Amino acid sequence: MTEFKNLNSDELEDLKNELIKRYDEFKTLGIQLDMTRGKPCPKQLDLSLDMLKCANEKHFLAQDGTDCRNYGGLDGIPEAKDLFSSFLGVTPSEIIVGGNASLNMMNDTFVTAMLHGIDSENPPWIKLPQIKFICPSPGYDRHFSICEHLNIEMIPIGMDEHGPDMDTVEQLVKQDENIKGIWCVPMYSNPTGAVYSDEVIERLAGMETKAKDFRIFCDNAYTVHHLADNPPVQKNFLSACKESGNPERVFIFGSTSKVTFAGAGVGMMAGSEKNMALMKKHLAFQSIGPDKINQLRHVLFFKDMDGINAHMKKHREIIKPKFDAVQGILEKEIGALNIAKWSNPKGGYFISLDTQEGCAKKIAQMASEAGLKLTPAGATYPLKKNPVDCNIRIAPTFPPLEDIELAMELLAICIQLVAIDKIGSSSG
Amino acid sequence: MTEFKNLNSDELEDLKNELIKRYDEFKTLGIQLDMTRGKPCPKQLDLSLDMLKCANEKHFLAQDGTDCRNYGGLDGIPEAKDLFSSFLGVTPSEIIVGGNASLNMMNDTFVTAMLHGIDSENPPWIKLPQIKFICPSPGYDRHFSICEHLNIEMIPIGMDEHGPDMDTVEQLVKQDENIKGIWCVPMYSNPTGAVYSDEVIERLAGMETKAKDFRIFCDNAYTVHHLADNPPVQKNFLSACKESGNPERVFIFGSTSKVTFAGAGVGMMAGSEKNMALMKKHLAFQSIGPDKINQLRHVLFFKDMDGINAHMKKHREIIKPKFDAVQGILEKEIGALNIAKWSNPKGGYFISLDTQEGCAKKIAQMASEAGLKLTPAGATYPLKKNPVDCNIRIAPTFPPLEDIELAMELLAICIQLVAIDKIGSSSG
Repeated sequence: MTEFKNLNSDELEDLKNELIKRYDEFKTLGIQLDMTRGKPCPKQLDLSLDMLKCANEKHFLAQDGTDCRNYGGLDGIPEAKDLFSSFLGVTPSEIIVGGNASLNMMNDTFVTAMLHGIDSENPPWIKLPQIKFICPSPGYDRHFSICEHLNIEMIPIGMDEHGPDMDTVEQLVKQDENIKGIWCVPMYSNPTGAVYSDEVIERLAGMETKAKDFRIFCDNAYTVHHLADNPPVQKNFLSACKESGNPERVFIFGSTSKVTFAGAGVGMMAGSEKNMALMKKHLAFQSIGPDKINQLRHVLFFKDMDGINAHMKKHREIIKPKFDAVQGILEKEIGALNIAKWSNPKGGYFISLDTQEGCAKKIAQMASEAGLKLTPAGATYPLKKNPVDCNIRIAPTFPPLEDIELAMELLAICIQLVAIDKIGSSSG
Repeated sequence: MTEFKNLNSDELEDLKNELIKRYDEFKTLGIQLDMTRGKPCPKQLDLSLDMLKCANEKHFLAQDGTDCRNYGGLDGIPEAKDLFSSFLGVTPSEIIVGGNASLNMMNDTFVTAMLHGIDSENPPWIKLPQIKFICPSPGYDRHFSICEHLNIEMIPIGMDEHGPDMDTVEQLVKQDENIKGIWCVPMYSNPTGAVYSDEVIERLAGMETKAKDFRIFCDNAYTVHHLADNPPVQKNFLSACKESGNPERVFIFGSTSKVTFAGAGVGMMAGSEKNMALMKKHLAFQSIGPDKINQLRHVLFFKDMDGINAHMKKHREIIKPKFDAVQGILEKEIGALNIAKWSNPKGGYFISLDTQEGCAKKIAQMASEAGLKLTPAGATYPLKKNPVDCNIRIAPTFPPLEDIELAMELLAICIQLVAIDKIGSSSG
């Protein structure tokens, strides 16, 4: 492999023709690969099938005697609060265990802030002329969609392997009282895999904010989703906020969507007791209570955090080879070409690939025409607009290993062809 | 039994002393009876225990091949849409099958109307100075709480056995564009048991409204919850709205909370295809999808509407004797006294008891002091304020039959004592 800049125009032309030939071969294969979403594969879902037997005709009472089949229990059954507070690193009085999705809880929290205010001292956000949110990018498209839907202005902020660009964040939030919060995925950030450093977490927890009701929306979606032997140990966001004297600053969200069943897991949110009391007050108007049977099912299946961690090791055995395949093929095909770089995450669900500027959309388009669907280029940026058009999110968990190998070979061909075209158009 | 007005003051004094003696005996019993909420009893919940086996390691795919364990399926799996569209009397394209509670869906629909508008032609309700809702009363406290939470002004409207006072409703909605809707429980209304007549449904569907985006929030919570042999057949609200040229006027809500498990059932909402498309558009920002495994579980358990109807007959066998006990004991104890009247519903979950004016709170207080908790008097009115203080909601389903007999005897004693006091205070 030789960097393109070191090839003369004939060599480049030969390479291009060879790549086009390979690309056309892919087209004739008629493959249909979907790597758009971070979905668990069937084998991963099989790991939790025994959970379906766990709540049954003999076992439907919670440990406090609550009949999980009946109404009640707004914030979850006690044993679910015990287990999942360990999961999120908080106490049982600092958690609400909910329905099947944390995304609903995130949206509900935003809606509460909009209509009622996020605390009792400050006005509902909807009363203000314009609310803004800081959105470290690339990030999770569904976080940004919640803001978009609520007409919240998003301020994209760069990310590196330690988290968001804190100098810029601190400068912005100090000055603008309309900036009411920031989205964070501190562990194995979606899609870059970044693990926020303790310093970043402490700066976010302690920074001066012009808005008195500034909130960190911390989506801890991948808190136990390790791919490496010695997973990083991270400062807990709520502890950091308490230590900084800002105990109400953070809401932490999590779920078992990528632990048990993506469609039938348990969602949860955590925060200071004061924050939880406020959310429960509002929740009481909206809900009679979550599906307690499904909470019981989860607790009976896992028993404790050791159970969850052992279970996650089985997930890792299934998906690690897929992540390795992406790394291996990209490295083999384009590793020496200096036309793209990609993350090598220690956990989570994604590999983030950065192309040359202005190339990502074209690459995704080419791949799609040959049968490989990728998350739309730009989807990981607010309003789906990446101004420099350079990011592609690769979701390796769902497809079978052999499909991933095919898909990455095809992707590498597309990356090269678009890079060669870029040389042609800039020199032409 | 002689009406109190036909007793001389000595006879009244003797009766009072006798009642006080009986009341005090109750107090010494130290009973603890809770008839506050319309909850199914454990025997009712037992009826659905086999459902917990229905989705299992062999059966987790929907009929279209969807893996119910994974993400996706915003509006429900096809077989759940089939079954529950029959349940609500609509077509599968007119329903969204959701999570474990229709109350959340009702609240979400209000929030959508507030923040985004309930159609694409009219402004979000929050942009208007004051939204008002018509609340037939007595009604369901949780409906009124949703309005209260969203600062929607409630206009109480009287009810009779055929539904709300339509002359008043028509007059109000014709004049006031801030009246954006009405709450309705058309079948076995909570708490009166009223079954809306077809004429009332047709008038609601067709009436002239000043607000262009007027909506009927129809909570069909008791659509299959019959207590009589020949249940009433009711005009479908969506059909009526279509026939009147107002297809978008109604949202219909329902759930299996009182069919399978109150805490782990399936909620649903229905309406015109246009309304469902709008709700799905908003839902896509808030949710990845409902618990499809629980939907599958329900469909496998019931198979079809015959399955649901057969199941509801078993519920009836359990709860009908409890309703009969309430009727029987009240009739025996105070039937001839003309100091209270109560409903004799053909279905649903409640008996509504009307006392003399200004007496309900005192009666509930006396009953509570002797160990019988009733739904707080007035709870069935907007802002929990019944201006004439005359309504008590009796929820007979949860307690065992022998407790109900005790409870009604105690209640009858309290009703008489308060009535005697009322004579004393008005003549004194």
